[in-house]
Parts: sequence; structure tokens; C-alpha cells
Amino acid sequence: MIDRETTICAIATPPGTGAIAVIRVSGPDAFSICNKILSLPRHLGEYPTHTAHLCKVIDNSETIDEVLVTIFKGPRSYTGEDTVEISCHGSHYIQQRIMELLLRNGAFLAQPGEFTLRAFLNGKMDLSQAEAVADLIQSSSQASHRIAMSQMRGEFSKQIQQLREQLVHFASLIELELDFSEEDVEFADRASLQKTLVDLIEQIQQLTNSFQYGNVIKQGVPVTIIGKPNVGKSTLLNTLLNEERAIVSDIPGTTRDIIEDTINIGGILFRFIDTAGIRHTSDTIESMGIERTLINVQKATIILYLIEPSEQPSEIQQMISMLSLQEHQFLAIILNKTDRVESLDLQKIKENLQQHFPQPIISISAKNKINIDKIHNFLLDCIKSMRHSESNIIITNARHYEALIHAQEAAMRMLEGLKTGLTNDLLAEELRQILYYMGTISGTITNDEILGNIFKNFCIGK
Amino acid sequence: MIDRETTICAIATPPGTGAIAVIRVSGPDAFSICNKILSLPRHLGEYPTHTAHLCKVIDNSETIDEVLVTIFKGPRSYTGEDTVEISCHGSHYIQQRIMELLLRNGAFLAQPGEFTLRAFLNGKMDLSQAEAVADLIQSSSQASHRIAMSQMRGEFSKQIQQLREQLVHFASLIELELDFSEEDVEFADRASLQKTLVDLIEQIQQLTNSFQYGNVIKQGVPVTIIGKPNVGKSTLLNTLLNEERAIVSDIPGTTRDIIEDTINIGGILFRFIDTAGIRHTSDTIESMGIERTLINVQKATIILYLIEPSEQPSEIQQMISMLSLQEHQFLAIILNKTDRVESLDLQKIKENLQQHFPQPIISISAKNKINIDKIHNFLLDCIKSMRHSESNIIITNARHYEALIHAQEAAMRMLEGLKTGLTNDLLAEELRQILYYMGTISGTITNDEILGNIFKNFCIGK
Repeated sequence: MIDRETTICAIATPPGTGAIAVIRVSGPDAFSICNKILSLPRHLGEYPTHTAHLCKVIDNSETIDEVLVTIFKGPRSYTGEDTVEISCHGSHYIQQRIMELLLRNGAFLAQPGEFTLRAFLNGKMDLSQAEAVADLIQSSSQASHRIAMSQMRGEFSKQIQQLREQLVHFASLIELELDFSEEDVEFADRASLQKTLVDLIEQIQQLTNSFQYGNVIKQGVPVTIIGKPNVGKSTLLNTLLNEERAIVSDIPGTTRDIIEDTINIGGILFRFIDTAGIRHTSDTIESMGIERTLINVQKATIILYLIEPSEQPSEIQQMISMLSLQEHQFLAIILNKTDRVESLDLQKIKENLQQHFPQPIISISAKNKINIDKIHNFLLDCIKSMRHSESNIIITNARHYEALIHAQEAAMRMLEGLKTGLTNDLLAEELRQILYYMGTISGTITNDEILGNIFKNFCIGK
Repeated sequence: MIDRETTICAIATPPGTGAIAVIRVSGPDAFSICNKILSLPRHLGEYPTHTAHLCKVIDNSETIDEVLVTIFKGPRSYTGEDTVEISCHGSHYIQQRIMELLLRNGAFLAQPGEFTLRAFLNGKMDLSQAEAVADLIQSSSQASHRIAMSQMRGEFSKQIQQLREQLVHFASLIELELDFSEEDVEFADRASLQKTLVDLIEQIQQLTNSFQYGNVIKQGVPVTIIGKPNVGKSTLLNTLLNEERAIVSDIPGTTRDIIEDTINIGGILFRFIDTAGIRHTSDTIESMGIERTLINVQKATIILYLIEPSEQPSEIQQMISMLSLQEHQFLAIILNKTDRVESLDLQKIKENLQQHFPQPIISISAKNKINIDKIHNFLLDCIKSMRHSESNIIITNARHYEALIHAQEAAMRMLEGLKTGLTNDLLAEELRQILYYMGTISGTITNDEILGNIFKNFCIGK
């Protein structure tokens, strides 16, 4: 499946028409294939690495384009192989012609993520770093960008590597004991091994704790607005979204594919779920029935429960009970339409609510845009309190999470085994399990299936 | 308006998310501005030109991205100025952050086409070559690509320059005569001047003749299908279009913004006009009334007149008369539904039509896709016959066409003036007019307004 003998090519820039487009060619024949279609006076391999050259792309005698070609000699390239980047005029027609020319001269169309896969196979980065490349490209907020960047720069890999190395040491000692099993020797210090396992379990716990945070940051934090019909859900939604639209920075040429119904507060992306149900169906009982509300609440990390001043604590209590919130979920009671009551009355209503409910109570007017910043603060506070891990390393990848859970389970079984005097061969088996799962994260241990699953979601040209 | 003291920046790749994006920075401070945001060990100006360097983009202490930076020292760059190309990960967020960082450090956002405008102002290309850059990026067929490429490589400029140089010679002699006007001397040989003017008028004629061809090639050749209701117009349209869809090459990542209702035959783009009128209104008399037909026919270069076997020559004649076709328009009579008549009858019908009409008659079955290739051939033949100019140089730009027409008119007045013994000062005035208009094409003569009009239609980052 994975063939590094071929030379691959792909358009690496976004599809469409622009000033320039970049076509990437990588593999053992990158220079000789490009040499056939470029008008350079010397063979590409004769130029120094990391140099750029103006030349023509020629198809028989027809000039297809005047391009800038940059030459990277392996291993000093992204993939680790000989690589050529052709920067051409960004016409769709020209991009297509150059691609056709490369394919005709022996290059193969790159699979999604194949450049990064080759970088991994050639030891330019480990697997979790490769995965971070895709996350980095998809990151759309400061928070998700920072996590991806940290992972791409290998901070997570380093921690995993360190944890694994300590265990590799013990593993070799225990395997040695197995070899000498007749003689009943003990090379591995059991007390020290126990301490290492406790430490490992603790560190994995910190990492897995960060996953919930990491995952919502990466995907955007799911928020739902609930409440009775006509309480102002769609007004609140529009107020929150429109404010964001107004402040979205607007550098021409960076026109963003506006992701519907998200807001970015303090670098964190919040994603409102089932807004169609709120916005387009005139807010009636039928359209926002209790079933739908319960489904949305299940999917949400943060629930904004909108009420009117006239609603009674007993009603509200009933609703909250019905939601059966999980431990990781946050709920705020948002008292809307505060412009309709006297401020003294409002104070009383709020105090009464505070006596009944431990949840934050925020009084606003969605229509008049009053206290919307308090909702912003509540959203950010939820995120802050999610980040209880002290580690700076956040995991965002379900594959890593799963591998860590498996490794932790094996570590706990082994720790138990040490206490109950499990035999060496069973201890060794648990240790191998831990090493295996830790190894799959960085790609020390891997196979075609794991790689196939990881890279199929990359974009072409990366 | 035109300020070359600033340093400009823009995203040069198409908008959206891809593997990589390229940000271009050009101007006197390109190196010092980039130096502030990049982690290179040496100042950018200290590296050799045309070299690529892997480094980080840093905002305070935060790493925004790991990028590849290519350095071009003026005048050896596209703009002729110091230029830096930053190739970053193609995330929208990263592109925006790097742009913000550049702007914050003193760069200005480039206007549309400003890189190419600077290339022109710095003598890297003349004006018609600069205009060809935009055409090249927009070109979507082999024919339009070839014309733009020829113009960008300066073939048209060279011809204009040669014509102009001969006249500059005479102009200086005539100006000399004006200085010595008291003495009645004649420095410029009138016979030779006359010959040069005749030659000029002839060459301009060839160029302006090519404009109609060049223009339709650039825009796509407008074609309209006319005929009575239910004669099969929408079936023919769909047959023509679907065949094209099936053969459009489909390299992943080059997904083309499908231009609605165009077909590419032999490298030429044909554009069907008012197809909504044919397709979406069930082909009734009301929807394709005669007025609408006449308007479409006016806009079309090629008219496909679809008839049924039962239609009488007199009806057809009446329709053709009503169209009042221009000299530059082509019409074919397409005999549809030939699957419904016996082949002997068909032969007779066709012969009868041929006796009545000089236009080509093509018998087809749109439904059964019979003889569709004959329509293809007819379309291509029309294009071939449009290209009557012997010159390889095709003009496609209305601005050039207009300037050439003005220059030719002045040349004709001057030629007339030579014959009727016009005074030297009036001759000199006409000559100045010719030189002026020829000069505006290459940009030897220009002003902010001309430049503004030309570059405002460029894309950002070019």
C-alpha cells in the first residue's frame, strides 16, 4: 500500500483561481521528471538545495507558463525526499495543464496526506506531529491553533517518549528475568517499578483529563439555548452572532468561509447547535418540543437556559431536573426581558432565583443588548474551569485518548499484579501492552491500517 | 496615488483552506519588516537572493507557524523590489494572523494588481504585458491561454514598439522642420513618410481585425440556440453540455468552478447564452417569444437554428429574414428529429433545404445523440474562418483596440494631409496623436487614471 519508490505530485494551494498556485513534486524522480518539463539550463539536481529559479514549463514546444521553481534536496525537505515546488500563475487551466504534464512524465497523483505520510516514514516527524499538521490547517481559533502548534512542535511526543523510555528499561530487565526464570533472579527493582507505574498512571490521567477540553476546543465548544416558546431564544442567538460578525476582522483576500452560527470569544470558538430549530420555525412548542431540547442538551457542553421574569422557581426546577445534566456540563439561567420589569422587582426576582438555584443567574435584555458581555464571561469561565489539568499539554485526538486509556488500564492491571505477586510472564505481557499503546501514539509501533486511517482525512497536497 | 515608497503585502494564493498558502511582501522595507516577525538567525538582507529558508513566524513569544521563506533581492524579483514570499500552512487562521502581523509591523495591504503595477513601474514589463498577466490567470481554455501567454511574453508589445519607432524618427524630423519653419527646409522625406503611414494603417488593420476573434476567444464564443417550441432546443443543449461534462478531466484538487453552460471544443470555449430561457421555462411560445430570440441573436456570434423535418422553407426563410444577421455572425440550420423520418425522405428534405439556403444544413437527432460531432465541427469552422488575419498576434483587449482605432484614424488623416499639402504644424499634430495612442498601449505614455482602470480588475496578491 505504501510505496515510496514512486514520485508524487499535487496542487498544494487551495482550489480555485488566485495570483499564484503551488504544485509540489516529491520522490526519487522529482528532479528528473521536472527536468523534462522545465526550461532550466542545467539539470535540477545540479543546483544547490533551497534555491529558486525562474523558468518556463514547456509541453513539446508550447510554453504553458513562466514559473518559479524551488529545489529541495532530500533529506533537507518536508518529505525528506527530493522535492520540487512549482509556483505558477494561479489559473485553473494552467494548474491542470502542469499536473497533466507531470503525470504524463511519470509522476503519480499524491493521495490525501501522502507528503506528510512520507515525512513520517522518512523520520522527519513522528505520528502525533503528523496528525497535528492536519489539525493546524483546520484550526480556526487561537486556542485550537495553539494546541495544534504545540503538538506539531513535538511537546506531546516528548512527554510520551519520556514515559515510554522509563518503561522500556524495566521491560528489558523483566525479559531478562524470564530468560533466567529457572534461577529465580530479580533484575528489576520492584519498588522502583511500582513507583514508575504510579507516576505513569498519574501522568496519563492528566493527559486524558485534558481530552474533553482539547476536544471541544478543536471542534468548537457546543452551546445550546433552551427555554419556553417566545422567551427570546432567537433574539439572543442573533444578538450573540451579530456582535461577532461586526468585529470579525476583514482583511481583503482572507474572506473566511463563515462557519454558520459560531462565535469566537477570547480566541475560543463556541458553536451553537440546532440553531435552525431556534431560528427558522417561529419558536413554537411544536418545533422546540421537549424531546428535541433533551437531545440538544445531551450534545452541548454549555446550556444557556433562558427564562422570563414571570417564571416560577418550581417550573424552572422541573425543567432542570428533566435535563439530567452530566458532570462535565455547564448551565446558566439567563433571565431575559429585564427591560420589562422595574429594577427593584428585578433585584427581588434575581435574589429569589439565587436562593433556589446554585447555577449562575445572569439577567439580560437580548433585545436591547444589555449584559451580553456577562454571557461572554460565563462562556469563558466554563472553559477555564474545564482546564483543570496542570499540564500544558492538551490532547485533542480521539486516537491518542483511546491509546492512553488502554495503556493506563494495562498499567493499573500491572500495578495490581505487582502487589498480588503476579508471575513474571504475565507482568511482562502487561508491560508489552503498555509499550504497545504508547508506541502507537508516536508511531514507534504502527501498521498500514493505522496509517491509512490517519492520513485519509488529510487534504490533497499536504 | 501610486506610492512606491511603501512595502505591500497580500495573500497570493486562492482564498480558503489548503495544504499551503503563500503571502507576498514587496517594497523597500520587505526584509526589515519580515525580519521582525521571522526567527531567522541572520537579517534577511544578508542571505543570497533566490534562497529558501525554514523558520518560524513569531508574534511576541508565540509561534504562529513554521514556514518556508524565499528571499528575492530587487531588481531580481517579480516587482523589481526586495520581495519575500512566506509559504505557510494553509489555515485561514494562520494566514490572517501572519497578515495582521505584517500590517502591524509597517507593511500595507496591497491593492488589486499592485505587485504587477510595481513590476510595470519598475520596468520589469510593459503595460500590455501586465494586462496579459490578468488574462493569463483568467484564461480557461487552450486558445485564450495561448493568446495571453503570447502577449505576456511581449510579442504584441514588440510589434507596437517597432511601428512606433519608425514614426518617432519622422516625428523628430518634422519637429526640426517646425523649428526651421522660416527657412522652408524639408528634413523628412515625404514619400518615405507616406509609405510608412500606409504600412502602419495596414498593420493596424490586421490587428484590429483580430480583435473580434480575440475577444470572443477570451470571453468564450457566444452561441444561441433558436427554433420553434418543442423542436428540441433544451434536448440539444443538454446533449452538448453533458457530453462535455463527461470528458472534463478530473484531477482531484483541481476541481473547477464549473462555468455554467459552456463547452470546450478543441481548446475553444463556447458559451451558450440565455439557457435559462431554454431550459427552465418548459419551452413554450410565451417563454421564448420572438423578442427574446432577437435579443439573444444580437448577442451571439454563432446561431444554431433548430428545425423539424416538417417545417417549410418559406417559414424558415421568414425567420432568417427577421433575424437580420450581421456580417460577423454565423448561422447553421440544424434539422432535428431525423430519427422520425425515413432516410430517403430525409435526403429529400435536406436537398430541398440546400436549394433554398446557402447556410450549412446539419441533420441530427438530439435525443439519440446522432451527428452531434457535426455541430462541433461547424462551431470550430466558424472560429477558423473568423481568424482571417495572417498575423499571429491577436488582440483581446478593448483598451488596445480603441487605442489602435484612434491611432489608425490619425494616420489616415495625416496620409490625407500629406496628399493635400497640409501645413507642417498640423501634420506634426496628427503624428503626435498617433504616437500618443500607440504609446498608451505599451505604457510608454500613461497616467494614474489609465493605470487605475487597468489594475483595479486584477486580483489581490498579483
